[in-house]
Amino acid sequence: MSNVQTISESAVNSDVAWRSINAIRFLSIDAVEKANSGHPGAPMGLAPTAYALWQHALKHAPGTPDWADRDRVVLSAGHASMLLYSMLHFTGYDLPLDEIKDFRQWDSKTPGHPEYGLTAGVEATTGPLGQGLGNAVGFALAEKILANTFNRPGHEIVNHRTYAICSDGDMMEGVASEAASLAGTLQLGKLIVIYDDNQISIEGDTDKAFREDVAARYEAYGFQIIEPVDGNDLAGIVNALNAADDEPDKPSLVTVRSVIGFGSPNFAGTGAVHGKALGGDEVAATRAQLGWEYDPFDVPSDVYQHMRKAVERGEALSNEWHARFDAYKAEYPELADRYLQDLSGSLPDGWDDGLNRLIGSIDGPIATRAVSGAALHAITPSIPRLIGGSADLAESNNTEVDGRGSFSPEMPDGRNLHFGVREHGMGAVCNGMALHGGVIPYAATFLIFSDYLRPAIRVGALSHAPCVWIFTHDSIGLGEDGPTHQPISQLMGLRMIPNLTVIRPADAAETFEAWRIAIENRSGPTALILTRQNLPQLPAIGGQGFARGYVQRGAYVIADTEKDPEVIIIGTGSETQIALGAALKLQSEGIAARAVSMPSWELFQAESDEYRESVLPSSVRARVSVEAGTTIGWERYTGFDGATIGIDRYGASAPGDVVMANLGFTVDNVAETARSLL
Amino acid sequence: MSNVQTISESAVNSDVAWRSINAIRFLSIDAVEKANSGHPGAPMGLAPTAYALWQHALKHAPGTPDWADRDRVVLSAGHASMLLYSMLHFTGYDLPLDEIKDFRQWDSKTPGHPEYGLTAGVEATTGPLGQGLGNAVGFALAEKILANTFNRPGHEIVNHRTYAICSDGDMMEGVASEAASLAGTLQLGKLIVIYDDNQISIEGDTDKAFREDVAARYEAYGFQIIEPVDGNDLAGIVNALNAADDEPDKPSLVTVRSVIGFGSPNFAGTGAVHGKALGGDEVAATRAQLGWEYDPFDVPSDVYQHMRKAVERGEALSNEWHARFDAYKAEYPELADRYLQDLSGSLPDGWDDGLNRLIGSIDGPIATRAVSGAALHAITPSIPRLIGGSADLAESNNTEVDGRGSFSPEMPDGRNLHFGVREHGMGAVCNGMALHGGVIPYAATFLIFSDYLRPAIRVGALSHAPCVWIFTHDSIGLGEDGPTHQPISQLMGLRMIPNLTVIRPADAAETFEAWRIAIENRSGPTALILTRQNLPQLPAIGGQGFARGYVQRGAYVIADTEKDPEVIIIGTGSETQIALGAALKLQSEGIAARAVSMPSWELFQAESDEYRESVLPSSVRARVSVEAGTTIGWERYTGFDGATIGIDRYGASAPGDVVMANLGFTVDNVAETARSLL
Repeated sequence: MSNVQTISESAVNSDVAWRSINAIRFLSIDAVEKANSGHPGAPMGLAPTAYALWQHALKHAPGTPDWADRDRVVLSAGHASMLLYSMLHFTGYDLPLDEIKDFRQWDSKTPGHPEYGLTAGVEATTGPLGQGLGNAVGFALAEKILANTFNRPGHEIVNHRTYAICSDGDMMEGVASEAASLAGTLQLGKLIVIYDDNQISIEGDTDKAFREDVAARYEAYGFQIIEPVDGNDLAGIVNALNAADDEPDKPSLVTVRSVIGFGSPNFAGTGAVHGKALGGDEVAATRAQLGWEYDPFDVPSDVYQHMRKAVERGEALSNEWHARFDAYKAEYPELADRYLQDLSGSLPDGWDDGLNRLIGSIDGPIATRAVSGAALHAITPSIPRLIGGSADLAESNNTEVDGRGSFSPEMPDGRNLHFGVREHGMGAVCNGMALHGGVIPYAATFLIFSDYLRPAIRVGALSHAPCVWIFTHDSIGLGEDGPTHQPISQLMGLRMIPNLTVIRPADAAETFEAWRIAIENRSGPTALILTRQNLPQLPAIGGQGFARGYVQRGAYVIADTEKDPEVIIIGTGSETQIALGAALKLQSEGIAARAVSMPSWELFQAESDEYRESVLPSSVRARVSVEAGTTIGWERYTGFDGATIGIDRYGASAPGDVVMANLGFTVDNVAETARSLL
Repeated sequence: MSNVQTISESAVNSDVAWRSINAIRFLSIDAVEKANSGHPGAPMGLAPTAYALWQHALKHAPGTPDWADRDRVVLSAGHASMLLYSMLHFTGYDLPLDEIKDFRQWDSKTPGHPEYGLTAGVEATTGPLGQGLGNAVGFALAEKILANTFNRPGHEIVNHRTYAICSDGDMMEGVASEAASLAGTLQLGKLIVIYDDNQISIEGDTDKAFREDVAARYEAYGFQIIEPVDGNDLAGIVNALNAADDEPDKPSLVTVRSVIGFGSPNFAGTGAVHGKALGGDEVAATRAQLGWEYDPFDVPSDVYQHMRKAVERGEALSNEWHARFDAYKAEYPELADRYLQDLSGSLPDGWDDGLNRLIGSIDGPIATRAVSGAALHAITPSIPRLIGGSADLAESNNTEVDGRGSFSPEMPDGRNLHFGVREHGMGAVCNGMALHGGVIPYAATFLIFSDYLRPAIRVGALSHAPCVWIFTHDSIGLGEDGPTHQPISQLMGLRMIPNLTVIRPADAAETFEAWRIAIENRSGPTALILTRQNLPQLPAIGGQGFARGYVQRGAYVIADTEKDPEVIIIGTGSETQIALGAALKLQSEGIAARAVSMPSWELFQAESDEYRESVLPSSVRARVSVEAGTTIGWERYTGFDGATIGIDRYGASAPGDVVMANLGFTVDNVAETARSLL
């Protein structure tokens, strides 16, 4: 249809498609210019690709952006946000021009990088590179699982594609490599990765740091490789997207050779156009070069008319789907109900019956990771959409659910996932699954390796993606694996991530409640911090083995005397038993010692002042915290007059009880520390 | 020479090479058995490979393990530590049998995973998968840079190879992908990656999660691919290592098809043998299968004799090198002296003259990232071994040094590195460079993306690897890029990593001192936390623009009254000016307010009680902290009676000053908060 040469001629603007493409370019340019901040280069280069995708390939309904069977687009190159906002605006999503004019301003719907939940049509929060591709793999995986679960012969109610738009930077990031390798292994044929191969990254020519053959690499992962297409060859791009669509058993890589900043006479094809406004002179020169005679934010009405047909098309598509869904519901009423419930995110009545039956059944010393495994086995029968796995540590993490099989291309009805040793990819994939909806993803590794997926935990929390993160081997108590594997900063580090609920249960009863909280928390992720080593059961505060209502409050008294407390000892997880032992020891000496179990800071901080005062009276300043991790942070509860028992060094390789004892985690040491405060 | 079939016949034990190989297997088995903890499978499968490497390929000198031109081996699969300890023990390193018997016990030299600095011959701390391969890329990169710097025609004083031993898990990790792509781009021909392709990971057959064509992927990166070789084909392995050696311009991938747990009749080839002791019965059965008639820890003397010839060979190799070095020194005395100094890690006299000349030269408002760039320009002329770059954000991080060129295969004398958008790989590579020695690596990205390399920062700190991490765009002050890019937990999170020194300077003078501290800190990494936005200069405490001796103490008084302070306001980085402004405002109201600048927690905590008391008198409990990050942790300095001004939510996309003001970072708000405490 065209090439770079012809596009630079203004005559092309007589074609409404190309007028639309230029309108996308200039709306992006103008918004960046007005904000004097942003990334015009990628939208300018990718406008034809976006046009081809949204107008020719995408199954979407701008009027009902949450239609469950829509295709998903993840803009992994989140800095190109104005490309996405332009497409959403032009194709009729709820994103008026005033919001575009407010690009990157306080309280607008057009922040610097796309944010899920804030802007209709934005499927994922992106910007931190590579993760968006991982999210897209998660979307495609969720689709495949839901299709397997709900589709019936003649009733393909789940059948949509996921597109990821990726930059060179995305392709360099390890998280994307991990996710792509998994996508190839799992043969996610409805995943289509659009690679904007513009050969420019911020430091200049990609030759400086990135000479690999990306297509060959993706072929090695098991992708279908589509012949690269010129970024201004509209027909070629449409054909490439169609070819991607034609391969059901492999994800596809569509390489688009675009020119960053296309149309800018002085900056096109250079890093200079990547991340800042062009400036008035260059904007004018670009208008001249592309023959664009409209003022800033002035969009020709025929472009709107042309692009907004997406609304009608979308309504037809979505109506057609709803008709098919009605037919499905007539034939499979229970499945249809479950589909609707799963997609709505609500939990079935009595979902926790199995969990409740387990409560009180565990006496002996047991690791909280093992209790967590039992909880998973108890919950999944009533919530089959609770689906996940581990980064190759399933046995250690107790995450494999018996009888559910392993998900694979040959066994798409398996429900245990195998992420491989790819923690960061796992994190991004699970965020994508959670954002897709219809599944509740869980994912596990050792707590030390939570650092590997920390960027995904953060973006997931920012996105309100309700994943359950399971982190076992949560302290020096893991023993012989030594300091490389013993977390010090990780637990407190997770607490510092806004909108992540961190729970470190002390025994079986607390672990069951931790799972209850995790499942019921649908507005953000929950991290469960679990031991490798066996723990005794705490005295039954809420009735035998039943901590319900206590864990939910974040912290509660587990031992007290009749007198007002003179000293309070606070423990979490495996150290709670030590805090309890020390309090009991002090009590035996006639000291009014209180022991507090504090499984969750976030939950405790969400409680009323009155409740918190009842647990930790402000008049009692002799306080000791006991947690096998950094002491930084604990002064929030111990103040200047208390003491923190923790670890501000690296651990050591030796049996867990030896390391624990040698680093001060004994009843005697805690009691002595508490005594010294009185 | 052999295949799996013949090896299982005991007759093979008549050959001292195969007796040595079985001795490696059984020393590993026995140590794991005694500890009842560890990973026997990989050592059993890889023993022939290790034998071939250490006895036939490696240029090493067990008697002088720090000989600078030795080949390096990084056991990226650190869980196979007993393989490495066995090789070090047998080939005559300082690792007696008693240490092997103490495997994974308190205070031994044989921790669960190899630790650099603890055990002679261990080149890198490994275990967290993937990073070891990244370290190896760093070793090879350092070698290439040093060879370019010091070698002269006829004088190849720097000429050694780096071997990485990698498991399936290593190959799955994104950090390894990133590092391998960089190694291919930079054509690090002396890097040899040995891939233990045993097709088993912990969850079972790698088919579950890892179906990609690893060799094709590495070929796409630019590696030479060596035909896979059977793990028991000793001659084949030697040939493969030789073939790897013959390619000077590409890194090589040597794939060894080993059988995990080889020799174990019941567990060989299964995940069961990966991570726990075989148990007495299976050990006996394995002894029978391999015809090994020796008791646990009983090593035939001819095996010692055979293997310990490595000591002699090593002495000859190292003597030969020293003779060549003498000849080099005779011809190039200055270069030779610089080589010795650079390798010793000591700094040249007057290294900071350039830095000192800069001090006081900056008046106007300026971003600390820009000051950091100026510092780099001032230091590199006197310390040319200060070498680094950015993960594709050089211009934003101010890390590119003018006139030093870009390191590339075509320009090996360039000294600006381009890591690409590969933060985690960058971290692991820099750790490898630092452990290699002869270079001081620095590496940069935005503070938010410190999370991407956090696992490498931690392992580097554990390893005492003295990298300089440069993290710019350090708060919501970065503005429009929004919450995806605005750090909340990252700054405090870095402070929680033991042996990492974190410095967040408040102005130019503090930034210069931060660089001085970073360069002088040779026992661990230093993280510099720098602003995107311009900052005013603080009043000159140590003479005009000269903060020397103040930053070094971590915190110091920047404004006071003659009276004892009633209230103390503590700031860091860009918020120090706000703390100062608030204190001055309160002073104008007659309140005795003190302002404290606290650029480094670690340095302040290393000070004497007296000094800390002089800055923060314990009698003054009305204290306010001001830092644009999580408030968790600040109660260490503000206690129950103070207040913390920080951010416990996500940021927002808007101009930086708007976000700052809207989230409470104003002089008025800080002053009001302080007033409310009185």
